[in-house]
Amino acid sequence: MIKSFLNTKKPRDECAVFGVFNNKDAAALTALGLHALQHRGQDSTGIVSYCKNQSNFFGHRGIGQVSEVFGDSNIIKKLEGMSSIGHNRYGTTGETALKNVQPLFSEILTGGVAIAHNGNLTNTNVLKKELINNGSIFQSTSDTEVILHLISTSKGDLIERLVYAIHSINGAYSLVMLSNECLIGLRDPLGIRPLVIGKLKNSYILSSESCGLDIIGAELIRDVEPGEIVVINNKGLKSIKPFANAKLRPCLFEYIYFSRPDSILEGKNVYQVRKNIGKELAIESQEDKIKFDKVVPIPDSGNAAALGFAEHINKPFEFGIIRNHYTGRTFIEPTNTIRHLGVKLKHNPNFESIRGLKIALIDDSIVRGTTSVKIVEMLRNCGVKEIHMRIASPPVKHPCYYGIDTPSEKELLASKYTVEEIAKIIGVDSLKFISLDGVYRALGYKDGRNNQNPEFTDHYFSGDYPVKLVDKTIGIKPSQLSLLIETK
Amino acid sequence: MIKSFLNTKKPRDECAVFGVFNNKDAAALTALGLHALQHRGQDSTGIVSYCKNQSNFFGHRGIGQVSEVFGDSNIIKKLEGMSSIGHNRYGTTGETALKNVQPLFSEILTGGVAIAHNGNLTNTNVLKKELINNGSIFQSTSDTEVILHLISTSKGDLIERLVYAIHSINGAYSLVMLSNECLIGLRDPLGIRPLVIGKLKNSYILSSESCGLDIIGAELIRDVEPGEIVVINNKGLKSIKPFANAKLRPCLFEYIYFSRPDSILEGKNVYQVRKNIGKELAIESQEDKIKFDKVVPIPDSGNAAALGFAEHINKPFEFGIIRNHYTGRTFIEPTNTIRHLGVKLKHNPNFESIRGLKIALIDDSIVRGTTSVKIVEMLRNCGVKEIHMRIASPPVKHPCYYGIDTPSEKELLASKYTVEEIAKIIGVDSLKFISLDGVYRALGYKDGRNNQNPEFTDHYFSGDYPVKLVDKTIGIKPSQLSLLIETK
Amino acid sequence: MIKSFLNTKKPRDECAVFGVFNNKDAAALTALGLHALQHRGQDSTGIVSYCKNQSNFFGHRGIGQVSEVFGDSNIIKKLEGMSSIGHNRYGTTGETALKNVQPLFSEILTGGVAIAHNGNLTNTNVLKKELINNGSIFQSTSDTEVILHLISTSKGDLIERLVYAIHSINGAYSLVMLSNECLIGLRDPLGIRPLVIGKLKNSYILSSESCGLDIIGAELIRDVEPGEIVVINNKGLKSIKPFANAKLRPCLFEYIYFSRPDSILEGKNVYQVRKNIGKELAIESQEDKIKFDKVVPIPDSGNAAALGFAEHINKPFEFGIIRNHYTGRTFIEPTNTIRHLGVKLKHNPNFESIRGLKIALIDDSIVRGTTSVKIVEMLRNCGVKEIHMRIASPPVKHPCYYGIDTPSEKELLASKYTVEEIAKIIGVDSLKFISLDGVYRALGYKDGRNNQNPEFTDHYFSGDYPVKLVDKTIGIKPSQLSLLIETK
Amino acid sequence: MIKSFLNTKKPRDECAVFGVFNNKDAAALTALGLHALQHRGQDSTGIVSYCKNQSNFFGHRGIGQVSEVFGDSNIIKKLEGMSSIGHNRYGTTGETALKNVQPLFSEILTGGVAIAHNGNLTNTNVLKKELINNGSIFQSTSDTEVILHLISTSKGDLIERLVYAIHSINGAYSLVMLSNECLIGLRDPLGIRPLVIGKLKNSYILSSESCGLDIIGAELIRDVEPGEIVVINNKGLKSIKPFANAKLRPCLFEYIYFSRPDSILEGKNVYQVRKNIGKELAIESQEDKIKFDKVVPIPDSGNAAALGFAEHINKPFEFGIIRNHYTGRTFIEPTNTIRHLGVKLKHNPNFESIRGLKIALIDDSIVRGTTSVKIVEMLRNCGVKEIHMRIASPPVKHPCYYGIDTPSEKELLASKYTVEEIAKIIGVDSLKFISLDGVYRALGYKDGRNNQNPEFTDHYFSGDYPVKLVDKTIGIKPSQLSLLIETK
Repeated sequence: MIKSFLNTKKPRDECAVFGVFNNKDAAALTALGLHALQHRGQDSTGIVSYCKNQSNFFGHRGIGQVSEVFGDSNIIKKLEGMSSIGHNRYGTTGETALKNVQPLFSEILTGGVAIAHNGNLTNTNVLKKELINNGSIFQSTSDTEVILHLISTSKGDLIERLVYAIHSINGAYSLVMLSNECLIGLRDPLGIRPLVIGKLKNSYILSSESCGLDIIGAELIRDVEPGEIVVINNKGLKSIKPFANAKLRPCLFEYIYFSRPDSILEGKNVYQVRKNIGKELAIESQEDKIKFDKVVPIPDSGNAAALGFAEHINKPFEFGIIRNHYTGRTFIEPTNTIRHLGVKLKHNPNFESIRGLKIALIDDSIVRGTTSVKIVEMLRNCGVKEIHMRIASPPVKHPCYYGIDTPSEKELLASKYTVEEIAKIIGVDSLKFISLDGVYRALGYKDGRNNQNPEFTDHYFSGDYPVKLVDKTIGIKPSQLSLLIETK
Repeated sequence: MIKSFLNTKKPRDECAVFGVFNNKDAAALTALGLHALQHRGQDSTGIVSYCKNQSNFFGHRGIGQVSEVFGDSNIIKKLEGMSSIGHNRYGTTGETALKNVQPLFSEILTGGVAIAHNGNLTNTNVLKKELINNGSIFQSTSDTEVILHLISTSKGDLIERLVYAIHSINGAYSLVMLSNECLIGLRDPLGIRPLVIGKLKNSYILSSESCGLDIIGAELIRDVEPGEIVVINNKGLKSIKPFANAKLRPCLFEYIYFSRPDSILEGKNVYQVRKNIGKELAIESQEDKIKFDKVVPIPDSGNAAALGFAEHINKPFEFGIIRNHYTGRTFIEPTNTIRHLGVKLKHNPNFESIRGLKIALIDDSIVRGTTSVKIVEMLRNCGVKEIHMRIASPPVKHPCYYGIDTPSEKELLASKYTVEEIAKIIGVDSLKFISLDGVYRALGYKDGRNNQNPEFTDHYFSGDYPVKLVDKTIGIKPSQLSLLIETK
Repeated sequence: MIKSFLNTKKPRDECAVFGVFNNKDAAALTALGLHALQHRGQDSTGIVSYCKNQSNFFGHRGIGQVSEVFGDSNIIKKLEGMSSIGHNRYGTTGETALKNVQPLFSEILTGGVAIAHNGNLTNTNVLKKELINNGSIFQSTSDTEVILHLISTSKGDLIERLVYAIHSINGAYSLVMLSNECLIGLRDPLGIRPLVIGKLKNSYILSSESCGLDIIGAELIRDVEPGEIVVINNKGLKSIKPFANAKLRPCLFEYIYFSRPDSILEGKNVYQVRKNIGKELAIESQEDKIKFDKVVPIPDSGNAAALGFAEHINKPFEFGIIRNHYTGRTFIEPTNTIRHLGVKLKHNPNFESIRGLKIALIDDSIVRGTTSVKIVEMLRNCGVKEIHMRIASPPVKHPCYYGIDTPSEKELLASKYTVEEIAKIIGVDSLKFISLDGVYRALGYKDGRNNQNPEFTDHYFSGDYPVKLVDKTIGIKPSQLSLLIETK
Repeated sequence: MIKSFLNTKKPRDECAVFGVFNNKDAAALTALGLHALQHRGQDSTGIVSYCKNQSNFFGHRGIGQVSEVFGDSNIIKKLEGMSSIGHNRYGTTGETALKNVQPLFSEILTGGVAIAHNGNLTNTNVLKKELINNGSIFQSTSDTEVILHLISTSKGDLIERLVYAIHSINGAYSLVMLSNECLIGLRDPLGIRPLVIGKLKNSYILSSESCGLDIIGAELIRDVEPGEIVVINNKGLKSIKPFANAKLRPCLFEYIYFSRPDSILEGKNVYQVRKNIGKELAIESQEDKIKFDKVVPIPDSGNAAALGFAEHINKPFEFGIIRNHYTGRTFIEPTNTIRHLGVKLKHNPNFESIRGLKIALIDDSIVRGTTSVKIVEMLRNCGVKEIHMRIASPPVKHPCYYGIDTPSEKELLASKYTVEEIAKIIGVDSLKFISLDGVYRALGYKDGRNNQNPEFTDHYFSGDYPVKLVDKTIGIKPSQLSLLIETK
């Protein structure tokens, strides 16, 4: 399959996880939850359920979106049982093979266990080498298999093993696990990736975001705390906190781009945060004293910030760019001729509403800058008079190693160029990024970022990596190990 | 495949057509144009090209969206030639069989001819009966085959035959046709369905909407006129006007719901019209003197009107409902339990931004009312204080027979109930539809609808059917003829 | 899909037809019958049924073998009704598009009618041109559509129309048709293609060969007579004989290669005929006075003749070549290196049983000779001492126009070379074809072929074409008409 | 997918393995080899190659036959490198999930290793329990994963680890393995499953049977010896014999039914052995002094024995039953009505050649007897006068645990009934099985089976299990472990 020639430049999150305990429609609810979390990963999806009566786990996994993989209702019917977990995956290039589709399942000493993971470990290769030295075999390229091996090679009951395992790993991880006795949810000691707890009558739900609860009418109880393990079984929910030094520092990008606007993470509504960022961006932007005619978002990711921006400066918010929501994952490969036409697969200017005007163009972030270049050119061609780009996040200067698929440092526009240079590259009349303090203010921290003890994981902006990058420091790469490249 | 249990209640347009003449990437451009027109039909799609060097037509048609059916670039390469036409289809129940996928192709006396059709004839069954009497055979259930038979059974060259054919048919139709010599576009004498002409350097383009030109960077030249036939060949574009009494009365619903907001039809930008409708709706609505806290659209179809509404009353526009754009065409069949959860596959309230408020809830139309009931209940559950629904079209009281898939009269809420009764059914605190005059004002007719000589086709609101409903009057139904029900 | 690089050289028959009347499992029985007739066409298959209670026809057609296209039992369940017809198709290159898959279905004046055809018309293009002149439109490239048009454009009830139609067509045809009232079967006036009538309790069955009756336990009643129309409805079977000059001359190749050995055609068991041919071949061959060690068939088509040959000369029959029955329709494209290995995808010598021996190698026919070359080389390499090829049919010198897909004259080895030359090309120690008289003797005509009034259609051997080749004589080719080449 | 209702009763072998070293078409040759070995397993297939230049393994595995899974030549091109291994799998019910498709691949301490396995271990569950106790995780249900774990958890280089591993396992196994340095082949100490070595110029080939060499024109060098490990790398082939007590006792059923007739195993041509068995069966049968008219095989498995039988008694061999080779893996589910018709999906009597005769009906074996019952009934219905069944193997009284999928003891007809009773059940006039001594005589052991030291593994006849059945004795079942049931 050929990848679109207008692939989004957006950083992409690697996964969604979901779990249900004690519901006779467990698998169906899981499919619905995963559907609501589809924005976190569209490459593959899977569900594993457990049926007590039959003492069996049931599974189905496939390449594609939830509605494709679970579109046949017979499949859901075969996933019997009162508990289940599921996973959506965003796979980086070359890793879309079926072997990497989650949840992973394995028999270990304590019985069968299924596991689904959102995040990324920073000492995967070190651990993998050690485990292989001790005889473990690896059949996928995902770091989830590392966690499974750490569990299987330690001692005690499943929880004791899990506690041992998470003390060995570094990185960002939100996990859901399913055994024949319980549903487990846990977050890393900084709570970098989100995970919330919900209730639907007598059933417990775990979901990457609260919008996964909304779709099935479940009530949001609370977020899983950083470093907390919640064990849900027939007796209820038990909380275990094995880390002494756990301290919440969730990923700032979840608020800026990843999470759905209607989600509530750590008590904060993502949409409100984005509107606030728009407002703070407007405040910081006002020093320019530019009189904008209209405020135009790059849809849909710039919508909320643009609305906040427009409200603050009291200028019209305008849908000046229209997005085609039918853009599939693959499309025709263009000839050179077609490439030069500047084909607008995804965005089209809404000519009449912006022609001849001085606009504030709002986007959530600039990563490689390639989409920005195209959109600005498109707007110029249709007669926009002045384009002042305002970005609802600080410059992205550093790659992520905690589960966001960012390009390497040298592909990050802001790590190579000044704001002025970027403005020139993109072709705008002016460019402004919100300050990192501004983002913190939008999140309710009036004094901005507390640099001694910041409340969020924000290394892509600050270079402050709160979890050590073990593999990177030691320089172990997966390519030193033998790799199987599998054709779909 | 199981249809979603939350299928949209929206009336749906039946097709998009597209054509390219004199371009070596004809088929690729057609695929891109159809992609931009995907909103007009998602069930099937097809392209037929003509290659002069080989004296052959090439075709590919399939069930699914453009990016699925033409996702493999090898397919486009096989559609050789400098001219091509394409079609997107929205199929009503039971008619998704491959035999109905367009363009239709046939050998007739003048050579091969491909045809793609947007619209609906009102004397299909009368004509079909007559044609069958004279020995024509029908292999599909589409009325496009009727047009093809009328052409093949008349005399003269292709254009003479076409002129004969369109004098036999009643209804709404925008057609593109491809022969070994020319590309043809035409609209019915009232121009009910849209069709525009574009140019891309030396190539001519025909497209249902101007957004199909934008995606490939083509320039909008003009609309095909009502009753006009444009014949494009190596000598250029020739206009033929075989109808004495042609008079523009385009479908009003194209402006209200069907067309993409960035399209320009008959010189009017759809988005601007919708914003104007929002403004007129606000003006009409002000007599209530309700003080709204916020204006909330049902996304995305209510967005533009809501923005116009909000601007006029100077109250905040708010994304109070979030839409999941991943909703595929099929999804799991719910158990009764799940059904009662009120599953929110497509829309989710954005709690914090609307809780406790008095909102104006803007939608483009009410047809059956089922979605409205669900959304209002959803908003109530999350604590919205007062819901005042404002509809950007008049009550839909009459079914369409000109290419819109509306339900029958008895399923149209507004044909059975008063506005007050509808408000009660839907559960809102108040309900207001814009007047038909208001819509005309929004379109630039200050005095509203000229009832003696109205400018638009608006029978769903007015009951004024400008083209006679021959089949309906005579009472010929397709079920009297023998039908083949084909499994996909 | 890539065609195998060791494609069989065999002439291939173009179709199988099957019909059931008055059985509540009509569609299932049809699928089984088509499965038994799979050897007559593997490219596509389809079934149309009629359900009186619902006054509807139901259809399903697809690319592939019967067990693939009808493998899902839900499909059969949807083909409701007490009568149905079906078709297997062998498509020549470029014609595997779905539009050509039969049965064809159409609404005509008398109601819906489905039609399935085995054979080939010799005046298709003349008729097509005439029909197009009169306004008929053609949507496929099959000559079955011609028959449908002749029916639809004539007068009277279905049978009257059919009688008219078959008086217009020339060629070989065995047809089954289904209307809302009856099942119809008919053969051309020479009965070139086979068609038999069976009974299963109160149900009537029509089948291309009797093996289609055997699979469902139906009793063979008789062959449809040449030029006979059998009309089966609730009153029973009625025979119509509209041709005065009908006279049986069935295709000789059905006995030599096409039909399944267990079939009985015109009272003659195909297997017995083939054994007899082997015997006659042995008699004719004995003049050489070669002492064979063993008689080896090229499996499976040479099996029966080899057995008859071996029995007559009283030498051991030996399975000296083993056939791999898993050879699918497509397989990997070889590199040049692989091609030179002489890959044995389909046949492998059974070394030990033939090494060092003098063998009679029996095949049913030589067409292009390419397979023969390969097999002889293969046998040489494994140490066979002498290879004396004996062919169970006369030299194929003339192409067929009556439904067999033979290559053109210049590709037929025997039309260009003498037997001695062919022997040299193939690399055998000696080569002998049975005489045409010998084949007739094997069929029970002691005096051989009655050249004044031969009992079989045998033009590929004799050049005697019993039905005039209208299109060929006039020189009308389909390429003069416009053609749509459709991608699967 | 629904399994055929006339599924063969044949015992089925579980796999084929194939390997190529030092050939630039390694993967293509492997696909061809697997195609020739398709009869050993049709459910799934896979290939893993190693490319030295890229230091990467490449893999492709899928459900279906070789020509389906590797039908697209692009796939083969992606399997780069000069060495590769492949596998065909016959999966028992419920185990067709993709996770069980071989070759298995894993990273272990010594690098990547791929493994493909034909056979069955008898202490899988004991080993699995132990491995899980020590922290290994199992992601498939195949015993091949057990071998991989034994290798990964032992010490030394790959060969040392392998030697350790095979000293831990009991059962029948022929393995091929691929590392970044070498291709490995090995057989269990009794050589129960076959494995041969071939050469193609400078390339080494490993294949389950010699017919896998023939298809690519490779030369048969020798069989891998029992208990031998052959290590093939750039220096050539090295033989390692880690077992002191290795002694050849190959599976007798390979000669009777499994292997292709053209294969040569342990120097014996399978076809010749089967003909000899037919002859010995005839000799043993002669005591009855029945005068047969003809000898009829149940095709194709009875062909060779029937020919040997016929030759010995000097009576005509006859193709009295015709087999439909198109029978796919799945087909329509019959209604009860259809079931009672005695549908003949696979076999059909060749009426005329056997009606009214006294026949010897030859089959290779009787397992459950269900097919025999149907075939005998079918022959009776078409008028065969006397049916004397002669079976080319002794009664199958004991289940296999060494890689043949036999039913349990209570489903084996011969373990419950005497020969006379079986004759009555099947409905034949007489029934005779060859003696076990007779089979040995056919294999060249004039004195029959040496009961002190038999040359073959023949427990299904003799009850003599040469490898201890550890799991069975201890009573560990896989169901005690947690199982994931995966939907395709």
